[in-house]
Amino acid sequence: MQEITVASEKREEFPQLFPIRIEREFFAIQAIVFFVENEKKHILALEQLNHLPGAEVVHEDSARLAASFDSLKISRLPDVLFRIREASAVGAILKVANQYGIPVTSRGAGSSTTGSATPLNGGWVLDFSPLNGVRIDAVAGIAFAQAGVTIAALQDAAAKQQWFYPPDPSSLRYATVGGSIATNAGGLRGAKYGVTRDYVLGLKGFFANGEPFAFGRAVRKYSAGFNMRDLMIGSEGCLGIVTEAILRLVPLPETRWTCLAVFASENAALEAVQAIVKARVLPSILEFLDSQTVACTLKKHGSLLGISDATVSLLLIELDGSSDAIESEKIRLQEVIRQKTVAWKEADTESESERLWEIRRNCSQAMFQMGDTKLNEDVVVPIHTQPELIAFTLDLKRRYGLATPTFGHAADGNFHVNIMYNKADAAQSAHAEKAVLELMEKAVALGGAISGEHGIGLAKTPFLSLQYSQAEIDSMQSVKQALDPNGILNPGKIFTPFNVWEHNRIVARLPWDK
Amino acid sequence: MQEITVASEKREEFPQLFPIRIEREFFAIQAIVFFVENEKKHILALEQLNHLPGAEVVHEDSARLAASFDSLKISRLPDVLFRIREASAVGAILKVANQYGIPVTSRGAGSSTTGSATPLNGGWVLDFSPLNGVRIDAVAGIAFAQAGVTIAALQDAAAKQQWFYPPDPSSLRYATVGGSIATNAGGLRGAKYGVTRDYVLGLKGFFANGEPFAFGRAVRKYSAGFNMRDLMIGSEGCLGIVTEAILRLVPLPETRWTCLAVFASENAALEAVQAIVKARVLPSILEFLDSQTVACTLKKHGSLLGISDATVSLLLIELDGSSDAIESEKIRLQEVIRQKTVAWKEADTESESERLWEIRRNCSQAMFQMGDTKLNEDVVVPIHTQPELIAFTLDLKRRYGLATPTFGHAADGNFHVNIMYNKADAAQSAHAEKAVLELMEKAVALGGAISGEHGIGLAKTPFLSLQYSQAEIDSMQSVKQALDPNGILNPGKIFTPFNVWEHNRIVARLPWDK
Repeated sequence: MQEITVASEKREEFPQLFPIRIEREFFAIQAIVFFVENEKKHILALEQLNHLPGAEVVHEDSARLAASFDSLKISRLPDVLFRIREASAVGAILKVANQYGIPVTSRGAGSSTTGSATPLNGGWVLDFSPLNGVRIDAVAGIAFAQAGVTIAALQDAAAKQQWFYPPDPSSLRYATVGGSIATNAGGLRGAKYGVTRDYVLGLKGFFANGEPFAFGRAVRKYSAGFNMRDLMIGSEGCLGIVTEAILRLVPLPETRWTCLAVFASENAALEAVQAIVKARVLPSILEFLDSQTVACTLKKHGSLLGISDATVSLLLIELDGSSDAIESEKIRLQEVIRQKTVAWKEADTESESERLWEIRRNCSQAMFQMGDTKLNEDVVVPIHTQPELIAFTLDLKRRYGLATPTFGHAADGNFHVNIMYNKADAAQSAHAEKAVLELMEKAVALGGAISGEHGIGLAKTPFLSLQYSQAEIDSMQSVKQALDPNGILNPGKIFTPFNVWEHNRIVARLPWDK
Repeated sequence: MQEITVASEKREEFPQLFPIRIEREFFAIQAIVFFVENEKKHILALEQLNHLPGAEVVHEDSARLAASFDSLKISRLPDVLFRIREASAVGAILKVANQYGIPVTSRGAGSSTTGSATPLNGGWVLDFSPLNGVRIDAVAGIAFAQAGVTIAALQDAAAKQQWFYPPDPSSLRYATVGGSIATNAGGLRGAKYGVTRDYVLGLKGFFANGEPFAFGRAVRKYSAGFNMRDLMIGSEGCLGIVTEAILRLVPLPETRWTCLAVFASENAALEAVQAIVKARVLPSILEFLDSQTVACTLKKHGSLLGISDATVSLLLIELDGSSDAIESEKIRLQEVIRQKTVAWKEADTESESERLWEIRRNCSQAMFQMGDTKLNEDVVVPIHTQPELIAFTLDLKRRYGLATPTFGHAADGNFHVNIMYNKADAAQSAHAEKAVLELMEKAVALGGAISGEHGIGLAKTPFLSLQYSQAEIDSMQSVKQALDPNGILNPGKIFTPFNVWEHNRIVARLPWDK
């Protein structure tokens, strides 16, 4: 957590400590009794955990503040922060929390974009960043990773033994294994390599009542009892708390090759995507940038790699594997898209490749020229509907007068549609709210999903019922009730509608904010 | 179901129709009242489904008998059989069954080895074999398959468009998509290609109460709400009934290459397996046959491919991919295992490859020389513990005096240990029962699992508590209670111990019995 710094010059009024409690004192005598009882409960509960081995209890305001929000920047102060150093402490903490009905929210780095790591109802936050061991079985190609290890550290440990862990979110230097599992994180390589779920062999952790679980083993196959392992994946800390994962690795690709293809229009770029998929070329990365994204990147950085035409659309393509395999794939790739590109730039060296990647890395931040607030929606749609989705983002732009720069992982249909607006402008805010709802409806109507890799958290709660029928939501809630009958695990997430735009965001610069 | 024939010459007494009900008539008046009420309930329930479109109601004894067992051959007659022709009928049937508390068991071909398709408590059986549509999206590489389509038909449809569906159980000509999902079926290619779960993008079906669900979409990524899709996979029809799957395909491998490597001992073969995995060679198949398996195959078929020494152990190896890739992998493979083999036989033609495969195909049936009854246990263990598992099967053989021929998918650690005995011999039966318990304990102690691909059904229920703590089992049962509160879906499976060896098996020759 040390790397989180709050930009003091822009600091808004922080939420008061315990604002809910203070308000309650003005209410009737019952409320005061409730307040006192609640305080007593917290004190009694914490007393049970005196001298708990394997966890550090933190009361300091600054630490609690830093653990009060994630990348969505909706802040709610936890009552206490536990820094987890040994997995066993989680069981002990949950046992007490469950007994006293205290909310428990887990966090890694807090790079989640949806508010899933915000302790909405206060209570206790478990910070897993100190629990960061990782061990590689170099023969079998399996990693044993604790929840707090970063994806970058996991990849480094694997690479030393010539193995590779593919599903890396763009925040991989900070994002943790625990958070990746909680959101079923994806990343740029989904089409070729899949997502986190595709690499999880086993999970260890604790149920809401503090009892330990181990689902799955260090083996590729497993068909014994209900698939609780996969149920935990993507459950955003609402069904159990994962402390360790057994992860499958793949052989480290011998080499990589990157190129940038320039297209006269979005449609030309998306036709190329379809042609690539149809030709069975499987790039490890096939990243699409629409012309709005290109335009704002150019505006900020001037001409990039000789491109100065702000109406073009781009594909950033990476092939990986053996040199031989790449050579033959490269030829097939070029054959397929030669007719469709207006320009083509290969990276011959590592530093050239880095320069190509700069465009993609800078685009997210460059968008803030178009508005001070961004709704980053990671919808996912089937391949053949991609042109319709992009046409729809342009339609939204036209109808609402808001920029909708869009980029994303084209080969798996996972687009990041960014709706930009100025928060102080009431009309723009209202338009943004309408536009995001329409976008979600469109993604579902196209046979896609409201989230490809971010999860629901708080930010997407208003849209869950677009994706699911009441019976489907009921089934999820009945599972929640079954596994967490006292509702202590990350309450308020996924199911209870929370309108992000009605809430102030904390002004803070997080390490992954560029 | 037409292909199921019951070998009449060896036919045992079939279980009486409604044996439980007949017994009840001898009991007190309360029992008679219960019986009448139960009959009335069934009649009332069926009346609700008069003229149901999309399903054929079958009362005939022969059809009910054929639907009363699976490959485990524990038979319990259902009251009624529904042949499902349209998915929507499943919702209507479940609504009524749930209202009246009638057990519902789903079946495809009945090739499950664990009794998971046996309607243990009678009630209604849904036969999905008529619901066998399949459609391939040739651009995106996605199959839309109904529950009753066979894996072979799915593979054929995909291959016509140059796509491939890898997870195929050995009964692929009969086994259905629905059954594969219910058991999370694996097959020979697990180490390279994974299992059924790794190919499921979306599932459509019905909850116990008859409400429809659709979890997952025709997209590679998906992170929206709890992962109910994967919870359904491997749940053996106990949590919901799947009617359609959206399945990911991979490019059809250009070509395949097969070879048979002969080793002087099991240990030499397993050392070769570890060396192959360590060298990052990833065969599509790496099938191990121990010397007991080789011996009984030779005994039945005489010398095979010039091998007549019954003490050798074999690896059957398949590489797949482009010709170039296979060439270079072949060289690496040979380098790695050259020192360890005593003989080596490559298949240069398709028919030679077929001859190599005959050894593997015949071994299962050849084992019946060693006993008239087989306990086929598909344990799975981590790679580095394989020699210990095989040593343990030899230890069981020595201590109990029973043959324990073992073969399996070595690269993913999934071994089929076959404990052979003569059922009429009480001492052998008692020994077999003890040996199988010890084997399960060993698999768990080695960090593995009691089932890699068959599931629990009835056959493995006594061992579930070896794999899981009470808290873990409780979590599964609470999920069952949440999603099927009336307990109508495939009751008696997974959780209630059922000792197979105490029950008579029906004598029937199924199409996949060689």
